[in-house]
Amino acid sequence: MKASGIIVEYNPFHNGHLHHLQQSRLKTNSEVMIAVMSGNFLQRGEPALVDKWTRTKMALLAGVDLVIELPYAFATAQASDFAKGAIFLLDALKCKSFCFGSEEGSLKAFLHTYDLLLENKADYNTAISTFMKKGVSYPKALNEAYKLISTDVTLPLVDLSKPNNILGYHYIEAAKTLNTEIQPETIQRVIANYHDEAKTSETIASATGIRKVLFDDGDLTGVQPFLPLTSFEALMEWQNTANSFGSWERFYPLLRFIILRHTKESLAQFAEVTEGMENAIWNAATTSITFQSFMEKIKSKRFTWTRIQRMLTHIFTEFTWKQLKETELPTYIRPLGMNKKGQAYLQSIKKDLELPLVSRVAASKENKLLQLDIKAANLYYLGLQSSFGQQMVGSDFRIAPIRM
Amino acid sequence: MKASGIIVEYNPFHNGHLHHLQQSRLKTNSEVMIAVMSGNFLQRGEPALVDKWTRTKMALLAGVDLVIELPYAFATAQASDFAKGAIFLLDALKCKSFCFGSEEGSLKAFLHTYDLLLENKADYNTAISTFMKKGVSYPKALNEAYKLISTDVTLPLVDLSKPNNILGYHYIEAAKTLNTEIQPETIQRVIANYHDEAKTSETIASATGIRKVLFDDGDLTGVQPFLPLTSFEALMEWQNTANSFGSWERFYPLLRFIILRHTKESLAQFAEVTEGMENAIWNAATTSITFQSFMEKIKSKRFTWTRIQRMLTHIFTEFTWKQLKETELPTYIRPLGMNKKGQAYLQSIKKDLELPLVSRVAASKENKLLQLDIKAANLYYLGLQSSFGQQMVGSDFRIAPIRM
Repeated sequence: MKASGIIVEYNPFHNGHLHHLQQSRLKTNSEVMIAVMSGNFLQRGEPALVDKWTRTKMALLAGVDLVIELPYAFATAQASDFAKGAIFLLDALKCKSFCFGSEEGSLKAFLHTYDLLLENKADYNTAISTFMKKGVSYPKALNEAYKLISTDVTLPLVDLSKPNNILGYHYIEAAKTLNTEIQPETIQRVIANYHDEAKTSETIASATGIRKVLFDDGDLTGVQPFLPLTSFEALMEWQNTANSFGSWERFYPLLRFIILRHTKESLAQFAEVTEGMENAIWNAATTSITFQSFMEKIKSKRFTWTRIQRMLTHIFTEFTWKQLKETELPTYIRPLGMNKKGQAYLQSIKKDLELPLVSRVAASKENKLLQLDIKAANLYYLGLQSSFGQQMVGSDFRIAPIRM
Repeated sequence: MKASGIIVEYNPFHNGHLHHLQQSRLKTNSEVMIAVMSGNFLQRGEPALVDKWTRTKMALLAGVDLVIELPYAFATAQASDFAKGAIFLLDALKCKSFCFGSEEGSLKAFLHTYDLLLENKADYNTAISTFMKKGVSYPKALNEAYKLISTDVTLPLVDLSKPNNILGYHYIEAAKTLNTEIQPETIQRVIANYHDEAKTSETIASATGIRKVLFDDGDLTGVQPFLPLTSFEALMEWQNTANSFGSWERFYPLLRFIILRHTKESLAQFAEVTEGMENAIWNAATTSITFQSFMEKIKSKRFTWTRIQRMLTHIFTEFTWKQLKETELPTYIRPLGMNKKGQAYLQSIKKDLELPLVSRVAASKENKLLQLDIKAANLYYLGLQSSFGQQMVGSDFRIAPIRM
């Protein structure tokens, strides 16, 4: 059975994701589609709208064959580590290829870009430092440095100011530096702008746009056109049991409580908290009653909103610089759900796996990275501040991988 | 002006406290009555029913002339440190005497008991160790050891199994060991049993009993007979603005969240958490949805309920063994409120004070013990989980001592 991988968050699974899934299957000509998916916290440094189980269900119902959890330490990391963790897992799962959505759409452009940056690494890095010393944010510095070195106009090069292009670049980099044989593929995203908060067509909207409609309206009816019916029903079911969706605004009273338990100094122990951001974060928490007003106070030119949110995620989950630095590569394969085909595939590769396959977490509870996943899941549920959330604590020990 | 001190929690201020206040004034023949009062967390290791400002108001309206905050590090400490902090402050405030309520009622018995224990210190300590090695709790071991050495039946000795007698003993011990000249006095409590959860007369009930009625009934009407009208009105006002009363059950979702952010090992850093209690606490938090069920799982013969609650308080406020060990004596005098007489008294002693007088916390915000008080107050307000609580964060910087 030929398997291909995709790297997803599905927050929530929408029509654009369905398109990506179907096109990826065609493009890679694969029988089995494996999604490596973030758990309850995401790469933008946010709690997921709904938990990983509901998002797994949405994925399976839409045709994904096997869903594997991307461990917390990678799922909430900056793009290069996020990509490294995900590609490593897809390779460990014996995928022949992976396919990512990008604004660019041409694999050739990505490969040229990768070669160009590799050849000009020293110049590139110098330029990045120079821009950062001027006080521009890291992604912006990357982009400016890139413009400086990409002078050969005859090469098709990727616009690295676009978020999915950046991720794609890091996937390719990860596949190369990890010495894998996994083949990259890309398809063009049907909506160009990931951060677009508005609906861009009758049935396609970005996940960001969908979440915005949902939080603005306070109910699900407005987002129905943009979701497969199975996703919509899964969200309805979540709403009926959980009573609330995950968001920083929802989690803010707990985040604030955490921050104020700390001193400014002790906040600096948490991953990504740096350059005096501990002071800004602590000061803003003392006076801000909503997450929005809190963020308005700490946003800075130096750090992207996403980067700041990742700091907050790590404060929330008590994930330290020390733990971040000790993180190398995923140390297990944890299926969250599968259909019959996914099950058969997993069975077929089982004996050749080099990482332990974790179907019951109790059996692997000494694994540090897995402990983090369990902790992050628990804290996510408590963050919901509902009786459902209270009851879901410890559910990683009780819920078996979903089988469909 | 002659001043005397009392040591109080007023959780809430009730008719028994009024009796104690009035009798103390008579017995010590004092013009000015100064109450050293715990802040938002109490010696039994619990959040206060209402905050320190409302309890200060109750005290002033009932006739206390000056209310001084007992710093968190003493207010939530075991009896001997609690007593040491309180007596030190009363002495620093130039009180000639202090008067405590006790089950015993006779000062002579306390003085005899103190002498007896001092003379037999070695035997007493050996006996305590022996009992504790058998697995009995610390207060029980104290009491058993005490029975062993108190063989002289001609002396009037204090029954040290009674909680207010224990506190009284520690007050006297503190007054002696701190080399103060402050004179102890005691009056008999009008209800014999501090922990009595039932009403013991038409108008007198213990604070514990009052809180029980309040939480069982869910409203204030049932407790009215046991409170001065001024207290009752202050509680009504609190209920109308705060919408909830402080209790562990109320605070439990946050406590649980805190515990589960930690590992078992890292819980052991917090003050009083010892002998594997970190494991019991962590395990119980993973499975318990209410504070009551949580406590049922961790209660032990080795530790009193109160002692366990103090561990939880310190986990909640992030107060470590290290901080506990660094705590020696109060380093400031912080008035929470005063009437005209209290104000005049404070004015009269101001120039002789050896501790800084903190009326505005901003001016002393580098003081470590004061920082703890501010933090504990903030976390208490967040523990209430209400919009009132969110707004009260930072109120130590905004609220001036109450003047009446």
